[in-house]
Amino acid sequence: MYFDSAATSFPKPKKVIKGVEEVLVNKFGSYNRSSDTELGDLIYLTRKKIADFFNIRFANSIVFTQNATESLNIVINGVLAEGDEVITTATEHNSVIRPLLKLSKERNLKVHFVECNNRGFIDQNKIIELINDHTKLVIVNQGSNVTGAIQEINKVSEIVSNLSNSYLLVDISQTAGHINVDNQVLKADFLAFTGHKGLMGIQGIGGLYINPEILISPLKVGGTGVLSELLVQPHGTPIHYEAGTPNIPGISSLFWSIDFINEAGLNNIEEEMFTKNKYLHEELLKRDSVELYSDPNAIGITAFNIDNLVPSRTAHFLLENFDITTRSGLMCAPFIHEFLNNGPFGCVRVSFSHFTSYEEIDYLLTAIDKIIKESKKNSNINIPTEYELPSIYTWEEDINE
Amino acid sequence: MYFDSAATSFPKPKKVIKGVEEVLVNKFGSYNRSSDTELGDLIYLTRKKIADFFNIRFANSIVFTQNATESLNIVINGVLAEGDEVITTATEHNSVIRPLLKLSKERNLKVHFVECNNRGFIDQNKIIELINDHTKLVIVNQGSNVTGAIQEINKVSEIVSNLSNSYLLVDISQTAGHINVDNQVLKADFLAFTGHKGLMGIQGIGGLYINPEILISPLKVGGTGVLSELLVQPHGTPIHYEAGTPNIPGISSLFWSIDFINEAGLNNIEEEMFTKNKYLHEELLKRDSVELYSDPNAIGITAFNIDNLVPSRTAHFLLENFDITTRSGLMCAPFIHEFLNNGPFGCVRVSFSHFTSYEEIDYLLTAIDKIIKESKKNSNINIPTEYELPSIYTWEEDINE
Repeated sequence: MYFDSAATSFPKPKKVIKGVEEVLVNKFGSYNRSSDTELGDLIYLTRKKIADFFNIRFANSIVFTQNATESLNIVINGVLAEGDEVITTATEHNSVIRPLLKLSKERNLKVHFVECNNRGFIDQNKIIELINDHTKLVIVNQGSNVTGAIQEINKVSEIVSNLSNSYLLVDISQTAGHINVDNQVLKADFLAFTGHKGLMGIQGIGGLYINPEILISPLKVGGTGVLSELLVQPHGTPIHYEAGTPNIPGISSLFWSIDFINEAGLNNIEEEMFTKNKYLHEELLKRDSVELYSDPNAIGITAFNIDNLVPSRTAHFLLENFDITTRSGLMCAPFIHEFLNNGPFGCVRVSFSHFTSYEEIDYLLTAIDKIIKESKKNSNINIPTEYELPSIYTWEEDINE
Repeated sequence: MYFDSAATSFPKPKKVIKGVEEVLVNKFGSYNRSSDTELGDLIYLTRKKIADFFNIRFANSIVFTQNATESLNIVINGVLAEGDEVITTATEHNSVIRPLLKLSKERNLKVHFVECNNRGFIDQNKIIELINDHTKLVIVNQGSNVTGAIQEINKVSEIVSNLSNSYLLVDISQTAGHINVDNQVLKADFLAFTGHKGLMGIQGIGGLYINPEILISPLKVGGTGVLSELLVQPHGTPIHYEAGTPNIPGISSLFWSIDFINEAGLNNIEEEMFTKNKYLHEELLKRDSVELYSDPNAIGITAFNIDNLVPSRTAHFLLENFDITTRSGLMCAPFIHEFLNNGPFGCVRVSFSHFTSYEEIDYLLTAIDKIIKESKKNSNINIPTEYELPSIYTWEEDINE
């Protein structure tokens, strides 16, 4: 039984599998390379569907990447120059933290991480207080992959969109496909997303919206099929950022998965996910042995620990004794746990998708009850005691070691 | 009818399609993230198969990337520092030329391109003459994507492998899966490959062999699933270079496609491809109206022009009148055409795979004959006359414009 859809959604809609297979069996050639053009239509129409899905005007401002990590690396490396300031949050994923801190050394950046509360919510005023003339980039994780907290940043986006030399990058990896991301409202200059989570495409495809007024240095350059005579990467989005053969199976999966979401209705999905997740939260709140770190959310994420069981042990029992796949630990988000106050081992995360049933959630609850009952027998083994969590207050010491 | 397998092989073996579908339907979770480990086995075993296929000792020295372009960008950006010298060839693809020339400005590199002959072959002594104490990287395209010329570089690899501060990067995008690439013989420090050409996997997956003694700065960093508490990218190959969710469908396609090649026998594939391509070359040589730019090769590539027809027109007639998919133009390799002497519009490339039959080749020849017969009627339209090909002798002027 699968409770790790925040890592990658499962199952995929049947029309996605069928669409990918159709491409692999029947669509030959390489985009912008082979003499036929049918693949060009597929790629353009998928960009258009994604643009419409996020209420973005130009299909060509959607760039395809390998995953959200690549999208975030493109923006962070492309936008930030020597001495720039960056404001971001304690809820960020390592796909933001690592490129940012690597670059902070190479380009002498000033990086601020604002705190979150014990459910992963930030106070957007804390970002606003830090904005100044040197602020080049504000990066916000719209939905926490640990707690499912969805950030309100309307005031931040209003302010940044009116600054001529500051940009807003929103990581929508966990929210895309779960809640309505309307960029006419969000006003982000960059939206980084992955295809295989809430968007229900396959692994290996992600994307990046780039405000068409902005041209940044690409992360990688190379063949573009057309314009081969140019010794530099051609300008213009998306070609400037898409070197090499594109991932046609991955792109085609998004062509079909966004159809699936549109047919099911994003509002329906959001409401259903929230209601199911609220049910799970309410049930867990009744158990004294469970400590919760999340509030009900439409992303379908629930974060908790059981008594004093190390989270990896809980995840192990869920898998070995009940065949339930979850995730545990820090989940690539090292800073948030300081504020959740769950210790250096993080927590257990269960997360579901549109397809998860109440029967499955009840089975999960029964399994948790059995683990609680046996928790005194389920002792922790070999816990290293010197283990330390990194902190938003002391990270500079860590990276200079 | 498909004659563009050098862009992407088609069809894919049935077991590849079946294997990818099986993963999409039945293999859930995210590698190093979800609590089960089955995907770890699949990924490791695929690395192992690839390592064995190239006679490489350690499975973990195989890094998965999006495509050969990413692999080449990783090496070029990771190895070269301020003032380094690079030696490469006129046959390179834009996936080498563009990152190299971009970096040559940013890091003040000295870049040498050695000439090739009128079939795309280089003389390795020309590389050797240029090697000196400042040579950091030698980059050689093992098989030309324009002419199928396979380079002999045994002396170069012998010399570079004995230099402590020089590295050899071989681009095997066009040769992998067609000829035996044995790295105990080739002695490359880096092998860049793509999965969807001769290796017969799907689009969106590529790879890079990195000599395990070398650790370079990665192109992108981010989440690794494990070791989330580290604020820097974990060391060690492959994790140092593989940030973000891996492309499981793509990796699984290589798991099955390498099985397919091993069962068919790489030697058999090579011999069959060479024999078929020799037949096509011999037939074309009989036609006075055809100018050939390639010699018979096991990559299955044939490069030519018909009379004074602009190559894109020839490709257009082949597609529209005979339903034959080919490729024409410069094919992302802008420098080689100066030596093929085919003018600023490049040439037509027909390329086939293991699955292409003699019947298909004969149909192609019939189509070419019909185009020759009508070539006086098939006049070129609107050819821009000011069009210029870039040159290995004057590229510095181009990129400084």
